[in-house]
Amino acid sequence: MNFEEKTMKTEKIYEGKILNLRIDTVELPDKKYSKREIVEHPGAVAIVPITKEGEIILVKQYRKAVEKELLEIPAGKLEIGEEPKETAERELKEETGFSSGKLEYITEFYTSPGFSDEKMYLFLAIELIEGLAEPEKDEYIEIIKLDLNSLIDKVLKGEIVDSKTIIGALIAKNYLENK
Amino acid sequence: MNFEEKTMKTEKIYEGKILNLRIDTVELPDKKYSKREIVEHPGAVAIVPITKEGEIILVKQYRKAVEKELLEIPAGKLEIGEEPKETAERELKEETGFSSGKLEYITEFYTSPGFSDEKMYLFLAIELIEGLAEPEKDEYIEIIKLDLNSLIDKVLKGEIVDSKTIIGALIAKNYLENK
Repeated sequence: MNFEEKTMKTEKIYEGKILNLRIDTVELPDKKYSKREIVEHPGAVAIVPITKEGEIILVKQYRKAVEKELLEIPAGKLEIGEEPKETAERELKEETGFSSGKLEYITEFYTSPGFSDEKMYLFLAIELIEGLAEPEKDEYIEIIKLDLNSLIDKVLKGEIVDSKTIIGALIAKNYLENK
Repeated sequence: MNFEEKTMKTEKIYEGKILNLRIDTVELPDKKYSKREIVEHPGAVAIVPITKEGEIILVKQYRKAVEKELLEIPAGKLEIGEEPKETAERELKEETGFSSGKLEYITEFYTSPGFSDEKMYLFLAIELIEGLAEPEKDEYIEIIKLDLNSLIDKVLKGEIVDSKTIIGALIAKNYLENK
């Protein structure tokens, strides 16, 4: 079956720093019209950095959208013209200070395809070299290290509530077990 | 450390059918100001429905935001005043036709806390009773059944690109193995 929705009209509502909002009028398969509210996002990367000792480097930061401090894997938006792997290298260094001798692409996914085009590229970072973090001027970040099993335990107990971190932890476990 | 960002001003940009957009001016820990673009969402549920034969009921639908058909677990937005469990029962029935004799809460997470407050509640649905689907008038859905191992295989190969479906599959596997 082909359920494609043809764009009949596009209305730009907002163009911002990290996202744009537009409303598409679409033609449904039955030829009726409907509206789709769409948040445009440049895409992002997330990195599961694993030390030689098997610890995962996590970042704790305040997320205004949910009014909470969350424990997450390092992540960040793609800059214009940047390849996901470059973004991953840059964000890992900026947020944690670590550089990786081996940054491996794992998978990619949409965070919330019902209303946003945000795509997240997931990487595994090993052979880590410690250095100084260089957070952006509006980023306040605390580094937390956890071994993979403790992280998985937290995921299964519902203590990790960030989707990319849940995916990163579960996929990294699977990936490392089957290597 | 306390990295809380105090709201100094809130500007409403858009109020829509499924989301609102606002810009908060916040005070950072160093007392400087910054802006946060925030997409308000009512929250949603996602359901991993498992038949007696161990098959997962999935839905294939066109997602305008990403201009693709995606294979996903059934899901839907919370209506005003609705408890997540009620939403899960309703959406499972609407999208797939199945009712569940046992709907179990598994966990909850934020899909994209960097810019949205969307929270997703995840349920496992067993003891399924088949019935007629009742999709909303702008929803076109195809039902696909896959056994859990084939679904996990697709996740690990990168063929499932929807975050809630990746999380649902991996957590359901863990949950069923440790039951």
